[in-house]
Amino acid sequence: MLKKEKLSETGLIKEIERLSSETQGFNKSLIIKSIGDDCAIVKDKNRMLVSSDSITENVHFNFVLYNFYEIGKKSLLVNLSDIAAMGGIPRLFVLSLFLPAYVNEADIKQTLRGIIDTAKKYRVSLIGGNISKASEFSISATIIGDYKDKNVVKRYNSKKGELIYVSGELGNSWMAFYLNSNKDYIFKNYQNLSPEDKKLIENFINKHKLPEPRINLGRKLSVGKLAGSLTDISDGLVKDIFNVIGSGCGCEIYLDEIPLNKELKYICMILNIEDYVDKAVSFGEDYELLWTSEKHKEKELLKLSKSTGVKIKKIGYINDNPACVNFLKNGAAYIPKDFTFKHL
Amino acid sequence: MLKKEKLSETGLIKEIERLSSETQGFNKSLIIKSIGDDCAIVKDKNRMLVSSDSITENVHFNFVLYNFYEIGKKSLLVNLSDIAAMGGIPRLFVLSLFLPAYVNEADIKQTLRGIIDTAKKYRVSLIGGNISKASEFSISATIIGDYKDKNVVKRYNSKKGELIYVSGELGNSWMAFYLNSNKDYIFKNYQNLSPEDKKLIENFINKHKLPEPRINLGRKLSVGKLAGSLTDISDGLVKDIFNVIGSGCGCEIYLDEIPLNKELKYICMILNIEDYVDKAVSFGEDYELLWTSEKHKEKELLKLSKSTGVKIKKIGYINDNPACVNFLKNGAAYIPKDFTFKHL
Repeated sequence: MLKKEKLSETGLIKEIERLSSETQGFNKSLIIKSIGDDCAIVKDKNRMLVSSDSITENVHFNFVLYNFYEIGKKSLLVNLSDIAAMGGIPRLFVLSLFLPAYVNEADIKQTLRGIIDTAKKYRVSLIGGNISKASEFSISATIIGDYKDKNVVKRYNSKKGELIYVSGELGNSWMAFYLNSNKDYIFKNYQNLSPEDKKLIENFINKHKLPEPRINLGRKLSVGKLAGSLTDISDGLVKDIFNVIGSGCGCEIYLDEIPLNKELKYICMILNIEDYVDKAVSFGEDYELLWTSEKHKEKELLKLSKSTGVKIKKIGYINDNPACVNFLKNGAAYIPKDFTFKHL
Repeated sequence: MLKKEKLSETGLIKEIERLSSETQGFNKSLIIKSIGDDCAIVKDKNRMLVSSDSITENVHFNFVLYNFYEIGKKSLLVNLSDIAAMGGIPRLFVLSLFLPAYVNEADIKQTLRGIIDTAKKYRVSLIGGNISKASEFSISATIIGDYKDKNVVKRYNSKKGELIYVSGELGNSWMAFYLNSNKDYIFKNYQNLSPEDKKLIENFINKHKLPEPRINLGRKLSVGKLAGSLTDISDGLVKDIFNVIGSGCGCEIYLDEIPLNKELKYICMILNIEDYVDKAVSFGEDYELLWTSEKHKEKELLKLSKSTGVKIKKIGYINDNPACVNFLKNGAAYIPKDFTFKHL
């Protein structure tokens, strides 16, 4: 479950993976899947999913874009998304809070309220944690989940001929981040903005600054055996696509098929932003699901989209060009500009 | 399992405990013990122990006292101690690393080596984690353990008439910290120190700067039903004693019975430190076990001490003065001076 965080060295993760293998033998019967996927899978008669993720001030959030309540929410949402990315059911979590002196009691209570409200929404139970003094504000959570019907959907498992799907819309997190970071400038300098446009921008920020983990969709993909390989998009499609591709496989992605929010397109039009597709596939932080499916399951996926109310979009297919990802735009090869979220 | 960290507000923990109760109902059948003990107990057919603890630069360690290898070790040792404090068997853990820019690859590798070596020693498996950029160095770990024979030993469970025991020696962590922090000054200004004394001091620091989690002892106390109430000493006996006292109970502690290291006493003599008992019971960081036992189990405890090679010392008894802890020194009431580790 060790995840490629945006600013960490891939080599370091490889090193951790290598080192962890020295310890795998001790509890072989307990560990079904260790480092290398969205979650570790451990079996203690029932199989549990275990994952941890952290958010840090000025790396994953700042106090311009988020208040404490929202930071609390985000800390749990990113962990929930890891369970969704396995098709699992989140159950329990523990918290580590790193609290700097300038965070006062009211701030912490707001943070906890955000965490607890999110926990209630997704029916996960806080079962412990610890608090540490620190010079910057961080929250680390470890989430434990399980899954039914013996199904769990792993990374790196796609087969040639499978279609590639994505849930919801890409780029909304980028747009919300961009708008919020530049709102004052935009409102002052774009004279053509109507009061309705400004309201639209405000609403867009509020609606999209926090991700929605696709627990229910992930669960149904898993139970219905509708996905061959599944992950969530945290680093951007351009990077995360490599997490679904099975060995000996590659893929083609049609950038014209990337699902985009209508309001995002409208806002980009009035702000003269042209490269929004590049941004939508490279910024990350959307926490939408990305998976592959056999062709004949297309109808079932349509039904699933209707029953869950979550958009599902086919964006490409798996071929047998090993480890080769081709992006196409208007029918021609295209390399998306890299706007990978540089974590502030 | 939410622990009273030394610098956090008790009120904040209460708040978290209160808030977490809002989420307990969702997975009632899974949670046997949540916040309030050293570990959370969750049941997924087998019962698992889950705990998390963090260490942060300039709060729990600094680079004068510890190198990166030792910091790595410490981050896992403090977590292992929580499993020992339940009488459990550590099995799995996940890591969150917060890495500042000045920590280079070699530093991280050293840290990981310390973690992995400790994991191998205690036969626990690293099953995942995450990495985050940060402005200060922190390590958070979540540990998962289990236990056999349906035994686990909780806090707040002592009964009137039970005797109070402690493992190993208290004060060694304080002494190592004190000596290391003041070594240059001591070596320069204490003219009476022989070369042997200086070597003794160096050795003492190296031997005692890292705790030894009492996994085996905790396990045997639990399996043998030898402890009524059990915890580990992280904040100092003066504080942690309150974690074993059951409702309606209090205790008397004989300060003259506190187990002290011979070398510690010798070093205190040559350095003219007189209040070492006060320091041994209030500084904390020893991670020794503290438990209560029925009187008739004394012989079995003696046997256990022999078989495990771990010193066991009777230091007091449980009475029925509710929530009242009396310390006695030379037969008279005495309030230990508070040298609680102020986290640097």
